[in-house]
Amino acid sequence: MSCYPDAIETLISWFSRLPGVGYKSAERMVMHLLEMREEDIQDFAASMTEMKRTIRRCAVTNALTDREVSEFYTDPSRDSSLLCVVETSRDMFAVERSGVFKGRYLVLGGKLSPLNGIGPDELAFDKLLRMLDNGSYGEIIVATGSDVEGEATAVYIQKLLHHKKIRITRIAYGVPVGSSLDYTDEMTIMRALQGRREY
Amino acid sequence: MSCYPDAIETLISWFSRLPGVGYKSAERMVMHLLEMREEDIQDFAASMTEMKRTIRRCAVTNALTDREVSEFYTDPSRDSSLLCVVETSRDMFAVERSGVFKGRYLVLGGKLSPLNGIGPDELAFDKLLRMLDNGSYGEIIVATGSDVEGEATAVYIQKLLHHKKIRITRIAYGVPVGSSLDYTDEMTIMRALQGRREY
Repeated sequence: MSCYPDAIETLISWFSRLPGVGYKSAERMVMHLLEMREEDIQDFAASMTEMKRTIRRCAVTNALTDREVSEFYTDPSRDSSLLCVVETSRDMFAVERSGVFKGRYLVLGGKLSPLNGIGPDELAFDKLLRMLDNGSYGEIIVATGSDVEGEATAVYIQKLLHHKKIRITRIAYGVPVGSSLDYTDEMTIMRALQGRREY
Repeated sequence: MSCYPDAIETLISWFSRLPGVGYKSAERMVMHLLEMREEDIQDFAASMTEMKRTIRRCAVTNALTDREVSEFYTDPSRDSSLLCVVETSRDMFAVERSGVFKGRYLVLGGKLSPLNGIGPDELAFDKLLRMLDNGSYGEIIVATGSDVEGEATAVYIQKLLHHKKIRITRIAYGVPVGSSLDYTDEMTIMRALQGRREY
């Protein structure tokens, strides 16, 4: 069925493996690469292997890092009494970009999802407990997602830590900034009403 | 603004350069790569540089190939009296996948587009003329696109070759297979009516 030379076909199949990329998009990407300068492609390829070689999981916080321990943990200017628990490193960087959180992070590496075979042992709860043993945190902010699994993970954390006498908080559910109520689903409006605050 | 380790950020910016890929998609791709096995990533990276190294333009037909001359030209089982002129190698492979054309191809390498600085000198008209001088073609099928520039390119080819006494044909405009008339634009319906045939 295919008519491309092997070298192109092979690369298309590699790009097709990426999330959100079908055959047609992969084809476009490869055609674009063919137009790029050879040095650029070598740099691109080198940065792929380089990334895989240098990036690892932080020994303490489980975040993606190019060091033994993430600088978000070692940075002395950050508040060492606040711990934010997130599902993935992407979530961590999303929180970081908001600019309001200056504490430490723990990255679970996913969310509880029994149907997909992800139980507590697959997530970094051991690192979470070790961080709490080795630090003095006044508040744990549970910033897992607001879907069913993220919520189940939050409940699990709350149960895991509730004997520790640390303040455990959950990020707010509500109407996203910039959206109007008539485009917001009922569950979100219900949660926004339940979470209302005094002016 | 960014908080990813440099190695990740660099790779995200490489992926963002690909067509149809924004920062968020590039981020997802890089996170996916991090989950892949190191050998796979090395193979992926190697196939990128390998493709750039081995793929070139066919000396005769201008098609993408891993040989000096494309096998679509050298294959003796193909009809050497039919020549199909297409804009790009992707178009060539699209025609090939239809399975009805068994002649030779010439790839122009684009379409006439004065606004983008693409005139006749940027396209492979020299190779087209050389093919006609060195072969005996009974029919030239002009399979450039049906947009304004593709059409202008087709007209240019018709003028370029009209003294050659070769039959020059243009692929049909009309309603795409599987689409209903009420979703088809007026220009296409107009062309479909103009191009009607006897049963």
